[in-house]
Amino acid sequence: MKKLINEAANYVDEVLAGMALAHPEHYKIDGPTGRILRRPDAVDGKVGVVSGGGFGHIPVFAGYVGDGLLDACAVGDVFASPDMNPMLGSIEFANTGKGVLCVVGNYGGDRMNFDMACEMAEMDDIETAKVIVSDDVAAAGPDEAEKRRGVAGFVLVTKVAGAAAAAGHSLQEVAALAQSAADNVRSVGVALSSCTVPQAGRPTFEIADDEMEIGMGIHGEPGVRRGKLRPVDAIIDEMMDMLLADKPVSKGDRVALLVNGLGATPVEELYLVFRRAKARLDEAGAELALHMIGNYATSMEMAGASLSILHLDDQLEKLMKAPANCPFWKV
Amino acid sequence: MKKLINEAANYVDEVLAGMALAHPEHYKIDGPTGRILRRPDAVDGKVGVVSGGGFGHIPVFAGYVGDGLLDACAVGDVFASPDMNPMLGSIEFANTGKGVLCVVGNYGGDRMNFDMACEMAEMDDIETAKVIVSDDVAAAGPDEAEKRRGVAGFVLVTKVAGAAAAAGHSLQEVAALAQSAADNVRSVGVALSSCTVPQAGRPTFEIADDEMEIGMGIHGEPGVRRGKLRPVDAIIDEMMDMLLADKPVSKGDRVALLVNGLGATPVEELYLVFRRAKARLDEAGAELALHMIGNYATSMEMAGASLSILHLDDQLEKLMKAPANCPFWKV
Repeated sequence: MKKLINEAANYVDEVLAGMALAHPEHYKIDGPTGRILRRPDAVDGKVGVVSGGGFGHIPVFAGYVGDGLLDACAVGDVFASPDMNPMLGSIEFANTGKGVLCVVGNYGGDRMNFDMACEMAEMDDIETAKVIVSDDVAAAGPDEAEKRRGVAGFVLVTKVAGAAAAAGHSLQEVAALAQSAADNVRSVGVALSSCTVPQAGRPTFEIADDEMEIGMGIHGEPGVRRGKLRPVDAIIDEMMDMLLADKPVSKGDRVALLVNGLGATPVEELYLVFRRAKARLDEAGAELALHMIGNYATSMEMAGASLSILHLDDQLEKLMKAPANCPFWKV
Repeated sequence: MKKLINEAANYVDEVLAGMALAHPEHYKIDGPTGRILRRPDAVDGKVGVVSGGGFGHIPVFAGYVGDGLLDACAVGDVFASPDMNPMLGSIEFANTGKGVLCVVGNYGGDRMNFDMACEMAEMDDIETAKVIVSDDVAAAGPDEAEKRRGVAGFVLVTKVAGAAAAAGHSLQEVAALAQSAADNVRSVGVALSSCTVPQAGRPTFEIADDEMEIGMGIHGEPGVRRGKLRPVDAIIDEMMDMLLADKPVSKGDRVALLVNGLGATPVEELYLVFRRAKARLDEAGAELALHMIGNYATSMEMAGASLSILHLDDQLEKLMKAPANCPFWKV
C-alpha cells in the first residue's frame, strides 16, 4: 500500500480535520463521533439539504457542504455507510423549520440508515424527504433501474437540490426538482487501476497492466466488460453508446456533461475524454449547456474516469447554473 | 503504459484541443504549429505576461492563461522545451505597447529559447524582461541556488506577475515584483511513483512498492533521499525541515502555502499533507495568509506531493490575493 497517510485507523478523521482546518469558512466538524461535516451555521428560512455515505470519494459526499449545496453531511468509514446518528444529527442541524431533503446514493446501508434517521427526525416533528441517486447505467438494465448504483450523478443532483433550496422552494418542491435531476442523469465509468482501502492494505481488485474495466463502480464493483485497453476515443465511444442507448438525446436537447476523474487520472487525460464526449454530443445534435471537468467523485487512487449526462429542462438548467460555493466547486 | 490517450504522437495537440474546446472563453490555440495557448484577446494598457515550457504538468504552464495570470504560453512536447517560435509568438501577442514579462522555469532549453525569443522581440522593439523560477531546494544547496529547478513555485510567481501586470505597473515594476516572489519561494516534493512519457511508453524511473523519494523533480529528476515510505507526518516533517532550513520563518512572518498534488495523489491525502504542514508553520509562529490545496503543478500519473512556501511582504500578499481567473484557479 502506497499512500501518504498516518495510521490507517485514523485516516478518515485526520482527513476531515485537514479539510476543516483548511476551509473553516465552509466546514465544521460536529457530532459526538466527529462524523458530521457541516456549514458553520445553519441557514434560516430555507429547506435543509443533507447527505451522507462512505468515505474515500472526496469531494463526494462531504466536500459538497457549501453555499447552494449541502448544509451538512454524515461521514462513514472508507467505503462504509455512516450509522444513523450522524445522519440524524445532520438533519437536525440543517432543519430551520422548513424541513430537510436527504440526497442518498443507492447503497443498501446508506438507504437503510437514512430511512431510520428520517423516521427519528419525523418523531421530533422535522419534516424530511429523500431522493435516491442511482445513475450508473452499467450496474443494471433500464428494467431494473432501481438497482443501479449512485456514482458521480450525485454531484449534479446535489447541485440541483442545493440550488432549489437556496431559491426558497418548499420541501416538496425541492424534493421534486432533485428527483427530476435524479431521473434525468445517467453515468458510466471506466477503471484502469484499483483503489486500496487503507485498513485492508491491498488493492480491492486486480487488473492486468494492459486491461481496463468498463462500468466498474466507485468501490471496485464489477463492471460490464473487462478487456484490453483501447484508445481513449474508442473507450469514450463505448461509454457514450451506453449512456445514449439508455437515455437518447434528440437534436436541440440541452445537457450538462460531467467528465470526472476517479482520483489518479492526469487532468490532461480528462481533456481527451471531454474532447471525444463533446464530439459525440455534437454529432447527436445535443447542446452542451454546461460542462465540468475534474475530480468530482473519486475512489482514492483508482485511475479512470466517468461520464455523467444530465438531460436538462429550463428549470434544471437554471438550477445547475445558480451560484454555489464550496472548496471543490464554484459557479 | 496505462493511459486514456489516443496516438502518443498526438497527445499534446489533442489535450490542447480539449482545453480550448472546454474553455473557449479562456483559451485559444494559435501559431503555425498550434503550440501557443493564449487568451482570446490581448489586454490593452497593461504589461504582457507569458510563459512556456514542456508539456505534462497541466495546469503548469498553459493552464494558467487567464485573467490576472498569463496572457499567452508556448507549449512544448512532453517534458521538452518549446522552440523559440511559439515563445516569440506569445510575446508578440501579449505585447500591447507596455512590454512583456517572461516567467521561465529554470531548465536549460526553456531559458535558452526564451533568451532567443526575447532578443528577436527586442529587434522588433518589443521591450521584454525575464524572471527565472528556481524554487526546488532539493535540486542544489543555497550556495548554488541558481542551479535549482523550477517546480510548483512557478504557480505563485505567475500569480504575482499576472496580478502586478493587471494592476497597471510598468514592465520594470512587474519584473521586480515577480523577481521578489521568485526570490522568496521555496519548494520540495516527494514522489511515490513514476510518470510515463507517452512516446517512451514506460515509466521514467523505477521505485519499489515500499519506497518514496524525497526531493524528486517533476520530470523524475533524482531527489535527495530515497527510502522506505514513512507516515505522512514524518515525510512532511522532513520536507518542512528542508524548506525552513533554507529560508527560516520567524514569529509573525506571513506566508502562502501551496500543497500540490503531482497528478495521481488522492485529494484526501493532500489534506493530510496540509494538516501537518500547517501544524509546523503554527509551531514556528508563522501566519498562514493564504493556502492552496490541489493539483497545481503535475507530472501526469506521478503519485506524490510538493510543498511550496512563499514568504510574503505586504505587496506580495496583496498580489497573491488579487482577482485571478482561469479554469484551474479562481481568486
